[in-house]
Amino acid sequence: MIDEILEQVRNGSLSTEEAKNLLRQQDTSSLAYATIDYQRKKRCGENEIIYGLSKTIDQISGIMQEMTANGITRILVTRVDEEKAAAILQLFPDARYETVPQLLIYDKDSDSPLFGRISVVTAGTSDLAVAEEAACVSEYLHHNVNRIYDVGVAGIHRLLNRLDEIRESDIVIVVAGMEGALASVVGGLVNRPVIAVPTSIGYGASFHGLSALLSMLNSCSSGVGVMNIDNGFGAAMLANSILQLCREKHDGLL
Amino acid sequence: MIDEILEQVRNGSLSTEEAKNLLRQQDTSSLAYATIDYQRKKRCGENEIIYGLSKTIDQISGIMQEMTANGITRILVTRVDEEKAAAILQLFPDARYETVPQLLIYDKDSDSPLFGRISVVTAGTSDLAVAEEAACVSEYLHHNVNRIYDVGVAGIHRLLNRLDEIRESDIVIVVAGMEGALASVVGGLVNRPVIAVPTSIGYGASFHGLSALLSMLNSCSSGVGVMNIDNGFGAAMLANSILQLCREKHDGLL
Amino acid sequence: MIDEILEQVRNGSLSTEEAKNLLRQQDTSSLAYATIDYQRKKRCGENEIIYGLSKTIDQISGIMQEMTANGITRILVTRVDEEKAAAILQLFPDARYETVPQLLIYDKDSDSPLFGRISVVTAGTSDLAVAEEAACVSEYLHHNVNRIYDVGVAGIHRLLNRLDEIRESDIVIVVAGMEGALASVVGGLVNRPVIAVPTSIGYGASFHGLSALLSMLNSCSSGVGVMNIDNGFGAAMLANSILQLCREKHDGLL
Amino acid sequence: MIDEILEQVRNGSLSTEEAKNLLRQQDTSSLAYATIDYQRKKRCGENEIIYGLSKTIDQISGIMQEMTANGITRILVTRVDEEKAAAILQLFPDARYETVPQLLIYDKDSDSPLFGRISVVTAGTSDLAVAEEAACVSEYLHHNVNRIYDVGVAGIHRLLNRLDEIRESDIVIVVAGMEGALASVVGGLVNRPVIAVPTSIGYGASFHGLSALLSMLNSCSSGVGVMNIDNGFGAAMLANSILQLCREKHDGLL
Amino acid sequence: MIDEILEQVRNGSLSTEEAKNLLRQQDTSSLAYATIDYQRKKRCGENEIIYGLSKTIDQISGIMQEMTANGITRILVTRVDEEKAAAILQLFPDARYETVPQLLIYDKDSDSPLFGRISVVTAGTSDLAVAEEAACVSEYLHHNVNRIYDVGVAGIHRLLNRLDEIRESDIVIVVAGMEGALASVVGGLVNRPVIAVPTSIGYGASFHGLSALLSMLNSCSSGVGVMNIDNGFGAAMLANSILQLCREKHDGLL
Amino acid sequence: MIDEILEQVRNGSLSTEEAKNLLRQQDTSSLAYATIDYQRKKRCGENEIIYGLSKTIDQISGIMQEMTANGITRILVTRVDEEKAAAILQLFPDARYETVPQLLIYDKDSDSPLFGRISVVTAGTSDLAVAEEAACVSEYLHHNVNRIYDVGVAGIHRLLNRLDEIRESDIVIVVAGMEGALASVVGGLVNRPVIAVPTSIGYGASFHGLSALLSMLNSCSSGVGVMNIDNGFGAAMLANSILQLCREKHDGLL
Amino acid sequence: MIDEILEQVRNGSLSTEEAKNLLRQQDTSSLAYATIDYQRKKRCGENEIIYGLSKTIDQISGIMQEMTANGITRILVTRVDEEKAAAILQLFPDARYETVPQLLIYDKDSDSPLFGRISVVTAGTSDLAVAEEAACVSEYLHHNVNRIYDVGVAGIHRLLNRLDEIRESDIVIVVAGMEGALASVVGGLVNRPVIAVPTSIGYGASFHGLSALLSMLNSCSSGVGVMNIDNGFGAAMLANSILQLCREKHDGLL
Amino acid sequence: MIDEILEQVRNGSLSTEEAKNLLRQQDTSSLAYATIDYQRKKRCGENEIIYGLSKTIDQISGIMQEMTANGITRILVTRVDEEKAAAILQLFPDARYETVPQLLIYDKDSDSPLFGRISVVTAGTSDLAVAEEAACVSEYLHHNVNRIYDVGVAGIHRLLNRLDEIRESDIVIVVAGMEGALASVVGGLVNRPVIAVPTSIGYGASFHGLSALLSMLNSCSSGVGVMNIDNGFGAAMLANSILQLCREKHDGLL
Repeated sequence: MIDEILEQVRNGSLSTEEAKNLLRQQDTSSLAYATIDYQRKKRCGENEIIYGLSKTIDQISGIMQEMTANGITRILVTRVDEEKAAAILQLFPDARYETVPQLLIYDKDSDSPLFGRISVVTAGTSDLAVAEEAACVSEYLHHNVNRIYDVGVAGIHRLLNRLDEIRESDIVIVVAGMEGALASVVGGLVNRPVIAVPTSIGYGASFHGLSALLSMLNSCSSGVGVMNIDNGFGAAMLANSILQLCREKHDGLL
Repeated sequence: MIDEILEQVRNGSLSTEEAKNLLRQQDTSSLAYATIDYQRKKRCGENEIIYGLSKTIDQISGIMQEMTANGITRILVTRVDEEKAAAILQLFPDARYETVPQLLIYDKDSDSPLFGRISVVTAGTSDLAVAEEAACVSEYLHHNVNRIYDVGVAGIHRLLNRLDEIRESDIVIVVAGMEGALASVVGGLVNRPVIAVPTSIGYGASFHGLSALLSMLNSCSSGVGVMNIDNGFGAAMLANSILQLCREKHDGLL
Repeated sequence: MIDEILEQVRNGSLSTEEAKNLLRQQDTSSLAYATIDYQRKKRCGENEIIYGLSKTIDQISGIMQEMTANGITRILVTRVDEEKAAAILQLFPDARYETVPQLLIYDKDSDSPLFGRISVVTAGTSDLAVAEEAACVSEYLHHNVNRIYDVGVAGIHRLLNRLDEIRESDIVIVVAGMEGALASVVGGLVNRPVIAVPTSIGYGASFHGLSALLSMLNSCSSGVGVMNIDNGFGAAMLANSILQLCREKHDGLL
Repeated sequence: MIDEILEQVRNGSLSTEEAKNLLRQQDTSSLAYATIDYQRKKRCGENEIIYGLSKTIDQISGIMQEMTANGITRILVTRVDEEKAAAILQLFPDARYETVPQLLIYDKDSDSPLFGRISVVTAGTSDLAVAEEAACVSEYLHHNVNRIYDVGVAGIHRLLNRLDEIRESDIVIVVAGMEGALASVVGGLVNRPVIAVPTSIGYGASFHGLSALLSMLNSCSSGVGVMNIDNGFGAAMLANSILQLCREKHDGLL
Repeated sequence: MIDEILEQVRNGSLSTEEAKNLLRQQDTSSLAYATIDYQRKKRCGENEIIYGLSKTIDQISGIMQEMTANGITRILVTRVDEEKAAAILQLFPDARYETVPQLLIYDKDSDSPLFGRISVVTAGTSDLAVAEEAACVSEYLHHNVNRIYDVGVAGIHRLLNRLDEIRESDIVIVVAGMEGALASVVGGLVNRPVIAVPTSIGYGASFHGLSALLSMLNSCSSGVGVMNIDNGFGAAMLANSILQLCREKHDGLL
Repeated sequence: MIDEILEQVRNGSLSTEEAKNLLRQQDTSSLAYATIDYQRKKRCGENEIIYGLSKTIDQISGIMQEMTANGITRILVTRVDEEKAAAILQLFPDARYETVPQLLIYDKDSDSPLFGRISVVTAGTSDLAVAEEAACVSEYLHHNVNRIYDVGVAGIHRLLNRLDEIRESDIVIVVAGMEGALASVVGGLVNRPVIAVPTSIGYGASFHGLSALLSMLNSCSSGVGVMNIDNGFGAAMLANSILQLCREKHDGLL
Repeated sequence: MIDEILEQVRNGSLSTEEAKNLLRQQDTSSLAYATIDYQRKKRCGENEIIYGLSKTIDQISGIMQEMTANGITRILVTRVDEEKAAAILQLFPDARYETVPQLLIYDKDSDSPLFGRISVVTAGTSDLAVAEEAACVSEYLHHNVNRIYDVGVAGIHRLLNRLDEIRESDIVIVVAGMEGALASVVGGLVNRPVIAVPTSIGYGASFHGLSALLSMLNSCSSGVGVMNIDNGFGAAMLANSILQLCREKHDGLL
Repeated sequence: MIDEILEQVRNGSLSTEEAKNLLRQQDTSSLAYATIDYQRKKRCGENEIIYGLSKTIDQISGIMQEMTANGITRILVTRVDEEKAAAILQLFPDARYETVPQLLIYDKDSDSPLFGRISVVTAGTSDLAVAEEAACVSEYLHHNVNRIYDVGVAGIHRLLNRLDEIRESDIVIVVAGMEGALASVVGGLVNRPVIAVPTSIGYGASFHGLSALLSMLNSCSSGVGVMNIDNGFGAAMLANSILQLCREKHDGLL
């Protein structure tokens, strides 16, 4: 982008002042409460995704309206509770809401072919909401997802039973609360990138996920990439960047 | 003990004042810096054990001299560094020093028959000092010890290879640093009491053993008893109280 | 189990592929949200116990239905609040609900003879819910329970008054919040295994049970096994594994 | 003081400007690195005491010289290591050094009659340095001290044996590391002010005294006043303010 | 008490077995959920006080009924919310409830003469509830109370204006949240015992009172006794033990 | 002030006792629950501002009434929720309420000319409430405010686009939650005083703003002044003291 | 592997007992202090790597000797200080030592072709040791490395100047201490997998790397994978697993 | 700068490729271990300052040589210990070393006129090193400094005595450890910008400066800007940016 504008400046079709304004206008929308980043897809591979937790209904729908008005056809909003979702779906009847992971998805382009295979593995049933956030975001990003739930180390044969499936995937996302041991165990059994998501499941000395987080950071199986507590979304984004890299390599781009 | 003295008070062979003094004298020695507890063995099953870490050579040897002068034939001192040990061994040539677990042992009664079997299992080579503290104290307490070292979850087949041995023991002490996942995994594989000892092995977010400690407290395998960080000694003491209970039951005492 | 299957593989009655599938099927049920572990009893001495805290009514009752359909006759669900319990009891009228410890118990085999004696000792009245979790789970596991409540160190004669009872039990579970001093005091007075459960009772610098937890981990009475904050259930499970060990020894199994 | 000066201002013997300077000069000395507070004794009952830990030899001796030059006859310096002490004793041969509590004492007025009785009680031998700081500072402040060391709750009869002595004192300072349970136990047994000093003795989850500190703050025995970790000096100062209050009441001053 | 019973044992009017039972019965009541300590007053100078926070209405009123049935005429219950209080007042119409400090007081002996003077000083208006707990408990314990509220260091002349009053009291209780600086400032201005109570007032990095707690523990004014966060009750109890000591000294008892 | 009174004392028109009372009365109002500081404006440049969070409606309106009765024409109350605000506005119909930053403003003197320019920059839309607290308080203090919202480092060109505006302001207040990186980035790009306000926006390991707070304290861009978590008010006050200093310098006062 | 052995069991060439022993022997070496995992390469893609920090010279060289005796031709030892390294190099003259990252490398197979490109980016010069650990391990694993050091956000143009290089790499490892903002900034500028390594560089409230760790976990740029503090090695291992995945995809394996 | 280059591009004297390289070269030097930022002065008002703590002698002197070779005449290096300083002074005989604050200063332009007045106020003598870092850096930045040391709140009259001096300065830097109360007290007494620097002075629950840091962040005196623990340098940098702003305003630049 900067090259084109410099070229236009060079050949005189653009004044320097015009150049500066142009650079600004084309890549953001400024609302009173938000500065939407349209350059994100080019820069990071995906449109800006809306963090819904502490935003009002008006703010979320305002941003969505501005984005669609600017030609964006795929919007993902995370951490939207049911009440907010209901209100927004009134305004965006084409969107849909995933209750368990609290995702709101507006996608006019959902039939792209899927590529890559991500296993989402949880230690327990209680880790489901976080796991589904990882799984649904991965699907939104056009990847195949294999859900392997409740195979924690208290009954490790449950995991070993499904090891073949796990090893056949490209990337493994491990979601676990309490002591988070599953990440280390999986990390020691596969030769694929392992992404660990600690959850806040547990009580007492789990300290709202701190125990699982520290476990995963100190994994004796080396090379595990750790996300914030309950951040299934982030795990999907990292998996996506890895699979995009592989695809580009495969396609001979790199 | 109180019954005998009350009886003597009752039959007039003891004044109440004499009774009170007697009660005190027989169960403690008072040095300037220590009050030795001779009642400990009766009350808790084992002589008082000396915590050597922040005591001077003079304090440790003074306590040992007072104990031996009072007929104690078995003394254990924990956390004695090599310099202190050398000095004390000059005074107690019959004692011996275990370098790795930093234990000083004076034992005139070391050929009692062994009973019970304790497996001491470590995640890594680096956990050796803590594991040896648990193992050597267990041996001092007349138990058989099976050392199974460096079988952490990064290569879990190393553990599975030795599962039969572990399952054949009465008690399993699991010693692990970093993320401490081994305790949960072992806890899910055996039906014996599992005692978990977090170690301070690791760096960064292991926070000197906090990570392993929290992991073990939050173990998804239920019923794991946790000790303080690096407290191999305590694990041996808990194992001992369990095996003593079993022996008494077996001997028909209970 | 592996031996039988290997034997069948050897004598040709089973293909290797069949062997692998068999190994898997017999020990788990796979629901969408859970992988039930039927091997747990054989491996760890007790059926899988359901952690109810973050599961929905549908998940809990679905797991229970699958378990009963597979011939399980004893099910324990922990941390079930009253609303969930009422709904589940509609579906399982033979189950019962313990309000104080929030336990849901389904037990078709409740008249096994009791064995062993566990004292559950609390520092205060406020520790009751956690203590009852330990006590009721112990009873569910067929042990005699002796409740000794509100005998904390602010009035230590209350504890000393009942010391004979405590010393006559096989195992002592100490439940205390605030500063948790009771565990150390009891640990110094008995020669039985002591299991300490810190509770979240207190305010300010108790930091939701952290104070009691640290106290118990640092107990000057050696050999105290510590559980997670408010984890009365875990204490009962550890006590159970100890008493099972003693029974097997007594029965000459070991 | 302010009244006298206001009076002099009133009767014209002092200008307002002179008054302001006078107020300043009489109550401080200004060195390059220190502003010595001569008003402290009047205001708080005792001369300013020098915290030696992070001061150089030159700073400590400079402050002492300025103080003695201004007529101060009693100086206490805390936390002075042996090397610093040796250097300062060269300059102040009348001072003396207490090695265990690391106190440097210059006292030209040491034969005042003693009053009040403080029991300093420790859980273990390892708490000695902190206990001696409390004891020696108390003696410097002209109080009787009764040392009762190594009577922690692992062998509680050691404490009960000496309960009469403790109850006969006016104030009890309890010094304990690890889990610090002794403060609660003593607090439940006496009706005198109890001052608790946590020590950094312990390892692992004692977190350098945090465990004992939290225990003491959460004592189930109400009304225990807590000091900073290892702050035996502060305990003696609080005890002194209490005994001074009692003396004044006794002398009819209040 | 032990002397009388030993005497009766000696002169044969009591068997040893009777003696043991007697010792137990006279000093406690055992309810299902509580073991009431009647010896507390003798031992610690005041009846057992009921911590209401995590007790049910039935538990609180059950304990009160048992106490009154055993002749206790003064009962204090702390941390009772309004709903609980209303229910209990139905059963104990002679009791009264203090709304701000959430105290329930039953006192048939409230016209004893007051003695001693306690200043309760707060940094802000927001610290009122904790301060009133300290003040009302002090009054319940028959001390004069001087309330000096909202004189924090942001406007330190407010404190200086009232310094004479503060200096005329026997004991100063300083109640402050946020940074808790007031304790150090007051500690530097008076020669009376200073008791510091951190409060949970503040937000963000006050961490629910941790900031004020650490400040008070590290006070550069030496000898400040610190209580748990929001523990106005404990401050009053410590003040009471100090004033009782002074009264006994004054009365020539010591 | 002290000079005048000293002068009156000198010339005999005031007794010393009168002088002391006078000093007190003129600078405070004493309510039962508050000591209002009228000297604050003179001493610190602005009237005392009321912290509304833990005050009742009666306390807030009582303080406001006392202040207006003493001639104060500008009052700011922070952290007032909507219900409290509605009740207070009934009593002070001239006041107004800002919903987003939860400020209640009573200002009879709001048309003073504005001076200085403060940029309030946020990382995200979610930081709005804190940012508006900073912005509205700045406006109340008569400064120009430039709001630059949602320009966090995930799309750093949004910030770069508006760098000229930021560089043209006198002071930059950076408001950010999560990892708080924006403060360092802005600090590296401007040569104006930068004030950083961490917010509690985020989840998991943001630990309610701790992450952003630590980031800002450790900023690699030197000289960033940090406020408490969510303390937009404090940032405005620091900015105000800086701009007041500049104005006085500009006016030749210094 | 299990398939072959099952086949041999099936065709009778192996007894079941032999099968079990075989399974064990081929994948581990058991030393007194270590259980070497030869299966690691097959399972996880790389030989077991030796964590040197808390191992003795004898332990490290013993493990190396056992590995080389078993045909391993590439060994990496991390966190070896200079003294240990010198001693080991005596025994393994073919090995070499990298001083800055404290790596000991024994590699008989170092001329494999390189593939993939990893940019290692640091915020400051002080992060060099950690960055070099990541870089040298990456090179040992046959990847191209681009070092971009000291481009932290205090002078962000240094980063922007080299953005093209960074964007041309396959994976970006960001190494930063203090506030760790660089990870978020880079994460917002590239569409490649970003791996963040917090370092312990800083002082005070950096809390030995905690500040940078929390920053990276809370990155507003989504999808950043975080490693333990100072764990450059782990970052290289994760990068390696990603590049291996891409290569296999490229080679048509998946 | 960007404008000039755009202009050259426009008029054809520069190709776009040349433009990009030019932009890079003029503002940085790239060494193997450092990327020196020459734009810093323009952007932030002062040359890049070297953080010496974790840099080697070679790195520091290499950076200095590169800077001087590029015409920089003023260099400041912070946190340089004495050994490093001695070695560097060999190479830069014109530099000087300040021992107490561990600053190395190379300044060919030190006779610029001073402007502005900064009071550096400490609570104790032990805070001297941090205070001198603030003071000497302020002097290096051409400001007048007034040192007011050891006036902490334990003897608050020492502060009040010097209040006039403090109020006459433009900016007040308060340096305090332990409980850090001095910042709040000063903040309540002056109407100038107050910058607070917590120090790590103290022991036990000061937690290496955490106590003072939290105090300062929670100051009840509003508008105090807080720096990292022991960061006297940062305080001077913030003060400098404020005084630069004032000077520009005074000079009519803004």
